[in-house]
Amino acid sequence: MPNGENPKKTIAVIGGTGKEGGGLALRWAYAGYPIIIGSRSAEKAEQAAAQVNELLGKQAALGMDNPSAARQAELIVVSVPYAAHQDTLNAIKAEVTGKVVVDVTVPIQPPNFSTVHLPEGRTAAEEARALLGEGVRLVSAFQNVSAVHLKDLNHQVNCDVLVTGDDAEAKQEVIALAEAAGMHGIDAGPLVNAIVAESLTPMLVGINRRYKVKSAGIRITDLDGQGHD
Amino acid sequence: MPNGENPKKTIAVIGGTGKEGGGLALRWAYAGYPIIIGSRSAEKAEQAAAQVNELLGKQAALGMDNPSAARQAELIVVSVPYAAHQDTLNAIKAEVTGKVVVDVTVPIQPPNFSTVHLPEGRTAAEEARALLGEGVRLVSAFQNVSAVHLKDLNHQVNCDVLVTGDDAEAKQEVIALAEAAGMHGIDAGPLVNAIVAESLTPMLVGINRRYKVKSAGIRITDLDGQGHD
Repeated sequence: MPNGENPKKTIAVIGGTGKEGGGLALRWAYAGYPIIIGSRSAEKAEQAAAQVNELLGKQAALGMDNPSAARQAELIVVSVPYAAHQDTLNAIKAEVTGKVVVDVTVPIQPPNFSTVHLPEGRTAAEEARALLGEGVRLVSAFQNVSAVHLKDLNHQVNCDVLVTGDDAEAKQEVIALAEAAGMHGIDAGPLVNAIVAESLTPMLVGINRRYKVKSAGIRITDLDGQGHD
Repeated sequence: MPNGENPKKTIAVIGGTGKEGGGLALRWAYAGYPIIIGSRSAEKAEQAAAQVNELLGKQAALGMDNPSAARQAELIVVSVPYAAHQDTLNAIKAEVTGKVVVDVTVPIQPPNFSTVHLPEGRTAAEEARALLGEGVRLVSAFQNVSAVHLKDLNHQVNCDVLVTGDDAEAKQEVIALAEAAGMHGIDAGPLVNAIVAESLTPMLVGINRRYKVKSAGIRITDLDGQGHD
C-alpha cells in the first residue's frame, strides 16, 4: 500500500493485456502500486483491469488506451510484441517526456522464436532511445521473466531481472519494481548492455523446447562475493 | 584417464598460457584428456605445460606453437584476447579442417571491459565461421566462466556453460568437456545465439565491479521442469 513518506508511483503497463505485461501488472497491483493497463483498445484494457481487480479483490487497476495510460501514469512499462514496438512508442511518445520508461520488448522475428534476431544490429532498447529521444528516462528490463508463473502470486519466480540504462536513479527505481514483483533486480550496466537480456529471451525459448521445460530463466551467481556454490 | 572404449581426444588449448585457457587446460588434464598448450611462443607454451604437469604430478600436457598444437590435436579450443582472434585463427586455419573448434573469444574493446561491443554487429563466433569456413565443426562456449577459480581444482565453479553451434554432435562433445571441467554445459542453440554468451561476459565484468565481487556467473534455472525455486 502507498504510505505517506514514499507514495508509490502510478505505473502504466502498455501492452498490459498480454501475458507478460498482464502478469507484471498484477504483481505490482498486489504490491500496492496504482496500475493503469494500456492497450490499443480501451475496452480490452478495461477488461484486463477488471480481471486484476477481481483477482485481488480491490480496486487497484484502471484500463485505458495506450496514450491515455501513458499520460496519466508516472512510470511507463512497455511490454508489446516486437512487431508493434515502433507504432506503440510513437503512440505514447508525446506523453512520456521526463518519465521513466521501461522497455520489456524482445526483437523476436516470428515464426523463429528461439533464434536471436537483432534487426540492423540494434536492440529494441536502442531503437526506443532513438525514437523517444534523450528527454525520456529509458530503462530496459524484465525480458527474461517467463510469463508462465507471473499470475500465480505465491510462485517465487526463479529468474533474476537484468536492468540496464544510462540513468542511475531510474535504474534503481526499476530494480525496486523487480523486488516488488518478487524478483531480484540487478544493475547490469548501460543501456547498450540490453543486448544481453534481449538475446537471452529467444535462447531461453529454445532451451525450454530442447529441455522440455516451460520457464527456464537465469540467475547471476556469486553476488555474495564468496565465490562458493 | 583414457579408457579403451572411449579414448579421450587430444585437446589443443590455443591461448593456453592465458588465465582462462590455462585454467581450462588444467581441468581437462586433471580429467584425463591429453592436452597440448598452444601459444605464439613455443617456449612459453612449454613452460605453461610444465606448470600443468607439476600441479597434477603427472605428464599430462605438452606445449607447442599454435599451428603445431592445432595440427597434433583432435579438438581445438581457442581462448585468446579479441585483438589476437583473427591472426590466431589464420595461423591455425590450415590445421583444423574437419575438427571441432571451440571458440571462447569475447569481443571486448579495451579499455572498456564492461560494455558490450560487437564489431559490425557480428559475434566473434560468426567472425570465426567466416574466417575458418564451413569445413570446421565450430562451437562457441566457456565465455562466461570466470578464470578466478579455475585453477583451484576443488572449487565448484558456479557458472553454467552456454554451448552454441550448428553441429549437434560437436555441441554434445563440448557439453561433455564442460562436465569434465566440473561445470554444467547447456545446449543454447545455433551459433548465432553465441551473441548471448559473448555479451554476457562484459556485463558480468561490470557486475563484478558494481557489486564488489570477483566471479559473478550465470545459471540457467528451472531446467528440471518443476518451475520451483
